[in-house]
Amino acid sequence: MTSAPPERIYLDHAATTPLDPRVLEAMMPYLTTAWGNPSSLYAEAQDARRGLDSARATIAGILGCRPNDLIFTAGGSESDNLALRGAAWAARRAGRGDHIITSAIEHHAVLHTTERLEQAGYRVTYLGVDGEGFIDISELQDAVGDDTILVSVMYVNNEAGTVEPLAEAVRAVKEKNRKTVFHTDAVQAAGILDLDVDSLGVDLLSLAAHKFYGPKGVGALYVRPRTPLFPQQLGGAQEKNRRAGTENVAGVFGMAASLQLAYDEFDSRTAHYRDLRDRLLFGVPERVPNVHVTGPQPSSAHPEALEGRAANNASFCFEYIEGEPILIALDLAGVACSSGSACTTGSLEPSHVLTAMGVPEDLARGSMRLTVGASNTRDQIEYFLETLPGIVSRLRSLSPTWPERTRS
Amino acid sequence: MTSAPPERIYLDHAATTPLDPRVLEAMMPYLTTAWGNPSSLYAEAQDARRGLDSARATIAGILGCRPNDLIFTAGGSESDNLALRGAAWAARRAGRGDHIITSAIEHHAVLHTTERLEQAGYRVTYLGVDGEGFIDISELQDAVGDDTILVSVMYVNNEAGTVEPLAEAVRAVKEKNRKTVFHTDAVQAAGILDLDVDSLGVDLLSLAAHKFYGPKGVGALYVRPRTPLFPQQLGGAQEKNRRAGTENVAGVFGMAASLQLAYDEFDSRTAHYRDLRDRLLFGVPERVPNVHVTGPQPSSAHPEALEGRAANNASFCFEYIEGEPILIALDLAGVACSSGSACTTGSLEPSHVLTAMGVPEDLARGSMRLTVGASNTRDQIEYFLETLPGIVSRLRSLSPTWPERTRS
Repeated sequence: MTSAPPERIYLDHAATTPLDPRVLEAMMPYLTTAWGNPSSLYAEAQDARRGLDSARATIAGILGCRPNDLIFTAGGSESDNLALRGAAWAARRAGRGDHIITSAIEHHAVLHTTERLEQAGYRVTYLGVDGEGFIDISELQDAVGDDTILVSVMYVNNEAGTVEPLAEAVRAVKEKNRKTVFHTDAVQAAGILDLDVDSLGVDLLSLAAHKFYGPKGVGALYVRPRTPLFPQQLGGAQEKNRRAGTENVAGVFGMAASLQLAYDEFDSRTAHYRDLRDRLLFGVPERVPNVHVTGPQPSSAHPEALEGRAANNASFCFEYIEGEPILIALDLAGVACSSGSACTTGSLEPSHVLTAMGVPEDLARGSMRLTVGASNTRDQIEYFLETLPGIVSRLRSLSPTWPERTRS
Repeated sequence: MTSAPPERIYLDHAATTPLDPRVLEAMMPYLTTAWGNPSSLYAEAQDARRGLDSARATIAGILGCRPNDLIFTAGGSESDNLALRGAAWAARRAGRGDHIITSAIEHHAVLHTTERLEQAGYRVTYLGVDGEGFIDISELQDAVGDDTILVSVMYVNNEAGTVEPLAEAVRAVKEKNRKTVFHTDAVQAAGILDLDVDSLGVDLLSLAAHKFYGPKGVGALYVRPRTPLFPQQLGGAQEKNRRAGTENVAGVFGMAASLQLAYDEFDSRTAHYRDLRDRLLFGVPERVPNVHVTGPQPSSAHPEALEGRAANNASFCFEYIEGEPILIALDLAGVACSSGSACTTGSLEPSHVLTAMGVPEDLARGSMRLTVGASNTRDQIEYFLETLPGIVSRLRSLSPTWPERTRS
């Protein structure tokens, strides 16, 4: 017997998160009274400038960097584009080489940018990953040469939830070539993992506020002092000449407030995510036949060992059915989830992440990503687990490839 | 006798404008309930998608274009950067040439981008302007050759308020080379002048919401169908693959709401601006000696003929004093204004706009820009006109170059 859903159940927090009402409240002064242009000199502008400064200090506190090491952007994609192009062009200008290393499972904001850089004459190595999505540190180190100017490896994969061994990767790269700049797309890691840039050792780190209960349209790029970086968006002298354009003061302040809340409440939030995630990781295969967990594999013997998987991510591939019909049926049943990245919705190609992990194309088309968040409850997860099997078996009964159908 | 200011008097609406409370109200659903990722498939996402679509239709209605001709960006600087680089790289790829024409008085978002394009091998012609800031149409037409891929001329100059003869300029360019792409930075024109892209004839047009009582951190680029444009921010498939990144739904919706209000109330707003502007244009030189109006000159005989000047802009240069001390003294007296572009505040160089107009360097350093807005009143302007002379004469009495000082 399936209980009725008490409300909509949102299980796609990797796509975006609701704006925390406390964050909106923190933003309100900058949407009402403190609306001046922070570059101006007069009193109205100083309120806005103080808001920017305070936001910069807050985020720097969480990243363990200096406030001036942060460049505010319009989001994760801009941060990634700025990091890669900015570092690549600066290094070429300095005659330092033209080799870039990244992984095959990066977000398209990284991969489409490295493709554009290839067109401009850069040489790019795409690291493979193992069946759980992990890069191989020795493969990475072997790939680094004297002309390797940039490495970009994401912190948490947005589809499979794989947590890359970032600190180890940075050490391996710097051991081989200490001048190589290391960028990480940490968009999916904020609020889930420690962001201390010195522990990680990275030179560039991308963030997007709307992934951690902040507003859409705002992000940041951390830049380690003395990292050569050509500005990309040109114009006014904002962000110390590193990113032109009147600052999105309310958005930046909201980003800082939401990041602060994420780390103030870090332990309770991530414990909550982990609890719900594990119910999904173990519960789905218990209730549905012919399903595979994608990304780092849970072990019922050692569930606590799942350190290599983001606390909020449970992802699967179903045999014999495609992901999209499952999502549509779940949506009708009150559950929001996705088959992969929101940025590639509607694409007919199977996920580049899953295929890089060796998931066969047919199976990769049956993907479902669940990413839990602050508002989810055990009851919601229970309802989901009760609802899913019926949906899957109904869809399979319509599938020409489903063995039980062909047998009947 | 000087009356006390009833409140702060903000005369820098070209730097930024307050967010209209009606616009904030329109944005609120997208900051609270409709927070889904518009690229996703489920119900939560559809509310956000509908908000984006509705905003696109609203703006398209005002520009007289199709909704799909608009690309949402993070602001005017991104729009300018995207327009110039996107058009330049697309034209080079098509083998169409490498010549670009712009004017010497553009915003730095244009000029710093053309400088970067020069480094990449493009040839750039910088058109001069006359004493009032107008480009010369025949000089423009003479500069267009078979290899001219792009012309970028702003609609309204942000410092001098000059309204360039855009429709005429487009005709002159297209007559000579119909393949040349014409971009205009219309950031200062929105809410002040007609934005119909077909009357203007432009192929690309940049907007920034925070200049017309919308939110900071959001803008748009109009792109005429079949205009070759390489995307700049790469990643997801948003904006039909022309600008990656999760959309700033609340910001975009706010931009549309504020643009709609600006054109719903166009006649009354611009009449109000013009009334206050003329009081300043005529009143300041009446009360202060040795002051020059910069930009298009008013004529007391035909004030109604001032069509070539933005309705909200009154700008001046004072002999014998620098602009910054005036602004500081005015700030203390309750008035917010600027010496030029907010984006170049703190620069020690005299304005490139004023020097291009032939204003001598010393005089250009004594610049003051007043840009009126919806909340300004005749009483505020009267207070300003009463307050200014005392400030100017006090500062001049301290100036070593002031003749009355050296005479005493």
